[in-house]
Amino acid sequence: MPIDPLLKQINPPPRLMMGPGPVNADPRVQRAMAADLLGQYDPAMTNYMNEVMALYREIFQANYHWTFLIDGTSRGAIESALVSIIEPGDKTLVPVFGRFGHLLTEIASRCGAEVIPLYKEWGEVYSAEEIGAALDKYKPKVLAVCQGDTSTTMLQPLEEIGKLCAERGVLSYVDATASIAGNVLNIEDWEIDICTAGLQKCLGGPSGSGPITISDRAAEVIKRRWHVEKGIEPVGFVPGEGSRIQSNYLDLAMIMAYWSPERLNHHTEATSMLYCARECARCILEEGLHKAIARHEIGSRAMVAGVKAMGLELFGDQENKMSNVTGVYIPKEVDGEAVRRDMLLHFGVEIGTSFGPLHGKIWRLGAMGYNARKDAILRVLSALDSCLRLHGRSSTGDDPAIAALEVFKETEKNVPDIEISPVSDSK
Amino acid sequence: MPIDPLLKQINPPPRLMMGPGPVNADPRVQRAMAADLLGQYDPAMTNYMNEVMALYREIFQANYHWTFLIDGTSRGAIESALVSIIEPGDKTLVPVFGRFGHLLTEIASRCGAEVIPLYKEWGEVYSAEEIGAALDKYKPKVLAVCQGDTSTTMLQPLEEIGKLCAERGVLSYVDATASIAGNVLNIEDWEIDICTAGLQKCLGGPSGSGPITISDRAAEVIKRRWHVEKGIEPVGFVPGEGSRIQSNYLDLAMIMAYWSPERLNHHTEATSMLYCARECARCILEEGLHKAIARHEIGSRAMVAGVKAMGLELFGDQENKMSNVTGVYIPKEVDGEAVRRDMLLHFGVEIGTSFGPLHGKIWRLGAMGYNARKDAILRVLSALDSCLRLHGRSSTGDDPAIAALEVFKETEKNVPDIEISPVSDSK
Repeated sequence: MPIDPLLKQINPPPRLMMGPGPVNADPRVQRAMAADLLGQYDPAMTNYMNEVMALYREIFQANYHWTFLIDGTSRGAIESALVSIIEPGDKTLVPVFGRFGHLLTEIASRCGAEVIPLYKEWGEVYSAEEIGAALDKYKPKVLAVCQGDTSTTMLQPLEEIGKLCAERGVLSYVDATASIAGNVLNIEDWEIDICTAGLQKCLGGPSGSGPITISDRAAEVIKRRWHVEKGIEPVGFVPGEGSRIQSNYLDLAMIMAYWSPERLNHHTEATSMLYCARECARCILEEGLHKAIARHEIGSRAMVAGVKAMGLELFGDQENKMSNVTGVYIPKEVDGEAVRRDMLLHFGVEIGTSFGPLHGKIWRLGAMGYNARKDAILRVLSALDSCLRLHGRSSTGDDPAIAALEVFKETEKNVPDIEISPVSDSK
Repeated sequence: MPIDPLLKQINPPPRLMMGPGPVNADPRVQRAMAADLLGQYDPAMTNYMNEVMALYREIFQANYHWTFLIDGTSRGAIESALVSIIEPGDKTLVPVFGRFGHLLTEIASRCGAEVIPLYKEWGEVYSAEEIGAALDKYKPKVLAVCQGDTSTTMLQPLEEIGKLCAERGVLSYVDATASIAGNVLNIEDWEIDICTAGLQKCLGGPSGSGPITISDRAAEVIKRRWHVEKGIEPVGFVPGEGSRIQSNYLDLAMIMAYWSPERLNHHTEATSMLYCARECARCILEEGLHKAIARHEIGSRAMVAGVKAMGLELFGDQENKMSNVTGVYIPKEVDGEAVRRDMLLHFGVEIGTSFGPLHGKIWRLGAMGYNARKDAILRVLSALDSCLRLHGRSSTGDDPAIAALEVFKETEKNVPDIEISPVSDSK
């Protein structure tokens, strides 16, 4: 590639990202990222680190001291959790209900776990009884599960599962990347030990920072494996009795020491991404976490109403659907990928394809984070309606945007304190 | 922590970061990060990914196809390289000459390597003969070494070492985090197999993205270990014969598949950090890589002249000093930490402390990336001079800023095409 054309300034085309994530970031988050940098041990920087800990305790609804950021994507955060609690041979139960459940089995297996997967048809979730029975049968050390799996649009109920684990002394890990801040998640009430997330879904930021929260009980398990790297041991340091964690970069024991008042050197904190994660949490708490979740739920109802107005069929168990993503069967009359391409290239609107058993069968329509708002949902519905006509499907005659708008209007009437957009400053 | 005070907008105090890094980012890089996001498989996004590959081939001076970004800090990039080439039991030679050499031994050891460390007094580097003899004696599979180790301010000459490894079939890995773009680094000419970096030093960005380049030979070694995760195997996929890489997140074989035209799903690319990494490289190539390196070298000479004017003593082998950081003995009359604190809190200028055997003995003065410029170097010297007087040290009577300015003036006279600042648009 010749270099000269590469010397142009970045200039991405404007897109409305209404797939399963990543989605557009809140403009306030984009601006926060551009703030000036600080040194790692500057008191202003360590103060921002402490603020991030406090803000994410609210987002996770967990008063767990060890709440901080992993410098990587949500996948990096998942691996940091699993590699730090799983020792070779540890039995790890993974209730799989989509592609990201498979990912948990894969990562756990690389950490040396004896993985016990459970499987469900895509589009379904587990009952608490099923999980309880599996815990009793296999007696794992760890249970690892997704809250929301965007591959199927399903939301696994967790309220009882955390407690079932706690009663049995099983460490529970939840991947809430795709669900947090758009669906109810009460980590401490539900007695979940470790939860990780990413910014690029309902938190309204870009991918690249992974919030994590860790119960005291799980922190003890991790601290037992603390081995400080050569050359920076504190005076009198005695390594933990547990086995050394196989990753250095994702070693939670060392990362906790970095986020502790001792600030023991590990990585160089990704300052711009920390500003970004802070602003994501700040915007949501300014709005009110319960209002942000309600905004996603209303968006889901509006999206469903619009999809139905077009005569499209919904995918999966609607009782356990994620609020921020909706699975829709691709009508037989059209080429799903051609429709998606026209949506993107003519209308500037991105919607999601699918993979695995759902490949070519469903689209995934997302409305999350900054994009979980009225105008964005109306736009994706209108564009999809036009594209379906463009590709020869005959219209039902109903306007999906108007059908969605009815839901918003009804909500505004009934719940006047819920903003339909995260950005309104009018109140 | 109550939530209300946390709801304030980010507002870091202005700091001039003249330590060993991280340093202030180029404002153009900060603005690029704020650009609007794109979907992972949007043609505009994959085009930016390809541009990043081309730009970093220039920065690494390596026409290696596999040149891309790791979504993590420089430490994440180091681990991705070592975990992907080292299989359990592989002999790995690590010539240690500072704290970051220790880090390489630590990470290699967690990857299961039989680590063979060499040690040097801090402030010295290795001769090619020493490395050649060690390669012949230990016959390792991998050699891992830092180019610049900021803990000692030393720059290890690598020109011959890459070739010594290539002749013996040893895979060579170089950590160039602290040196790249501020010191000469010719990865392909020097026959180095893998090199990783970070943005937060001479590249003028924030921490959080790790550029990497991989020779075809090393890529073959890595591809032999390719195991695609369950649920997304391409049709007809046969896993590599090598052992599965123990990390999923840092598995270069999978990350290469993600950066290949097939774009096989792995992590969700950290788009804002990709924009940021692209802009770091773009700014340097717009300036000219050799000019950026010359700017750091001139900055080093100016810093040294200023330090000498204050009657301070330099640390380490000055023949093998990094251009972007200068070690200075803390004069006995003052408390080094108290001086640093006053530099930061009164003058807004950050300089570096030291650790390990140099703890309490030297300060580290950096001038790198966006801060490798005349006004920044004059400012840190003036502030240090004032702080030394404030803490009771008697002045030599020479003005360190004027001594440094003489170096810049001399350079401007002799090399008129070298800009002393990366930001001038006057030509």
